[in-house]
Amino acid sequence: MKILASIFILASLAAAQNKARDESKKPLTLASQGSFFVGGESKTMAAAPGRGGAFGQGEITINQMYVQFQIPPNGDRHVPVVMVHGCCLSSKTWETTPDGRMGWNEYFVRKDRSVYLADQVSRARSGFDPSILNAVKAGTIPPAQLPNVLAATHQTAWSVFRFGPKFGEPFADGQFPIEAVDELYKQMIPDLNSILPNPNPTWKNMAALAVKLNGAVLMGHSESGFFPQQAALADPSAIASIKGLISIEMPCPELPPAQIATLAKIPTLVMFGDHLDMQGGGPANWSASFESCQKYVQQVKDQSGDAEMMHLPKLGIKGNSHMLMQDRNNLQLADLILTWIDSHVESKKGAAKR
Amino acid sequence: MKILASIFILASLAAAQNKARDESKKPLTLASQGSFFVGGESKTMAAAPGRGGAFGQGEITINQMYVQFQIPPNGDRHVPVVMVHGCCLSSKTWETTPDGRMGWNEYFVRKDRSVYLADQVSRARSGFDPSILNAVKAGTIPPAQLPNVLAATHQTAWSVFRFGPKFGEPFADGQFPIEAVDELYKQMIPDLNSILPNPNPTWKNMAALAVKLNGAVLMGHSESGFFPQQAALADPSAIASIKGLISIEMPCPELPPAQIATLAKIPTLVMFGDHLDMQGGGPANWSASFESCQKYVQQVKDQSGDAEMMHLPKLGIKGNSHMLMQDRNNLQLADLILTWIDSHVESKKGAAKR
Repeated sequence: MKILASIFILASLAAAQNKARDESKKPLTLASQGSFFVGGESKTMAAAPGRGGAFGQGEITINQMYVQFQIPPNGDRHVPVVMVHGCCLSSKTWETTPDGRMGWNEYFVRKDRSVYLADQVSRARSGFDPSILNAVKAGTIPPAQLPNVLAATHQTAWSVFRFGPKFGEPFADGQFPIEAVDELYKQMIPDLNSILPNPNPTWKNMAALAVKLNGAVLMGHSESGFFPQQAALADPSAIASIKGLISIEMPCPELPPAQIATLAKIPTLVMFGDHLDMQGGGPANWSASFESCQKYVQQVKDQSGDAEMMHLPKLGIKGNSHMLMQDRNNLQLADLILTWIDSHVESKKGAAKR
Repeated sequence: MKILASIFILASLAAAQNKARDESKKPLTLASQGSFFVGGESKTMAAAPGRGGAFGQGEITINQMYVQFQIPPNGDRHVPVVMVHGCCLSSKTWETTPDGRMGWNEYFVRKDRSVYLADQVSRARSGFDPSILNAVKAGTIPPAQLPNVLAATHQTAWSVFRFGPKFGEPFADGQFPIEAVDELYKQMIPDLNSILPNPNPTWKNMAALAVKLNGAVLMGHSESGFFPQQAALADPSAIASIKGLISIEMPCPELPPAQIATLAKIPTLVMFGDHLDMQGGGPANWSASFESCQKYVQQVKDQSGDAEMMHLPKLGIKGNSHMLMQDRNNLQLADLILTWIDSHVESKKGAAKR
């Protein structure tokens, strides 16, 4: 009976994947698209070493967050979705997968969602504050004060992203398109978050974006997995605009009850993939992260919040890596999220509006 | 007579701008879109200072170039266009303007062109090689070997981009949407091109992209203004795939006759805006750049090449800044380029194919 059910599930999965493949070949119609920045402030920069004249002292803008968006023709029927990438990555995370399939950004748009991709402050098109580099080069501060640059090696990515038990040896049931792993490595870029002030400006910017959009679901992954919550805590005036918190694979911090109470006002979805107990020597301890988020979800529920832990293997969905938005079954997982938004965020839309 | 002609031109301009504004509100249909990388190679990175374990020594990928594309339904009727941004900027250059109008990326797509936006190697979503930062932090090389970071201040941008004779004082006839200049400042991000090897990997990657696309027009601006030519010179096997060279506002280098002869095989358009003789104390000398490109265009012509210097004021189009793809009349300038492609590249398409 269990075997029959499995066969049935696998057959439906295959049908869904084929349907998605066909769909990706259909033209895509947008009501509009574009890009803009959220946040940012002026700062006086010292003259760069060895460069006078117009590259001398002056104002630069720092802490701005670059956002790229697409709005489908029926976008106003749904709450917009903001996607924020993880460590050592950019918004490329959500686009075309390493093996060339459709990413979540386009799939969500095809499902009538307005999608906003944000590059974290200090990364990619958001830029970073180069003041420390210039000061070290000029000799005004010691080299030890240079930022810790997180640049994940292929070996680190393999273990932290749970592609397999050993570097070069993928899991037999792994969903990541491992034949295209070199294309993932190209996505990995230096992470300078260590130069950011505390609180991280990305949190405030995400909150401001939700307000600007007059309501949005915030989604984070890994390094940014808890950023949706941090955004809500960073700006209480934004809470009415943050319609849902979607957190994918990260450690959940210990929070005081008052903060849990605040977050419990917003529907919460946490998603984790498979092989969390993998022993790979990586810096991430996924079992511990999962446990911390189980606890967090329970704490939100205890304060009458709507929170759900979606542990994929528990739903019979096996083999998902940490980069699950790029896994072979990525659109199946997107459907789970879309369905969750429909029933936990949108069915309450009328009630949430004041 | 001259006055009447001017009035007629201004009236047509206004009509064209209104038409463009209406057009920007129409839905946009795409045959497909996505992103990928060109180039990139593995490099062994030393362990980051103070970080052992999985952030220890290993391979990283460097010199890859991130490319984002959109293909319109009739994209196969035209040669694709590759756009590469300038110093201290990213592909944001070509997107929504600082004051929220349509950028060249979408306008070209609406004109049935497949558009490929590339972030230069060492910038934005292409990432950079952090090895020097780590080595200085670890004390294995001196701080003086840190890269020169180009981070243009507001003051530098104002003068180099020719917004006005003095910081805060715009040209009376300036086309840049100066009320939104703060949004431009947010686009300005640290430029680490000084860490790149010579030849710059972006050149080879642009050539490879033209080959991958089975033919493309390459467009560069400012820092990358001569990159289309450098791409052609960097990879002779790509020359048949590089269908046009479009260079916007940069200095043109002195080249030996053999290189001019190579470049003369490809139709060339050079575009310069207004106020080139502005005295602003900026590091750019636009008059000298213009003269050097006049000379280059003549040298190409002397070798029977199809080369055109489009100096906008000579066409009666006044007030354009260095960021002319974001100026108020940006779509008018896009039309000039599209028309040039039609008549200088596409009318020869059959002949160019072997």
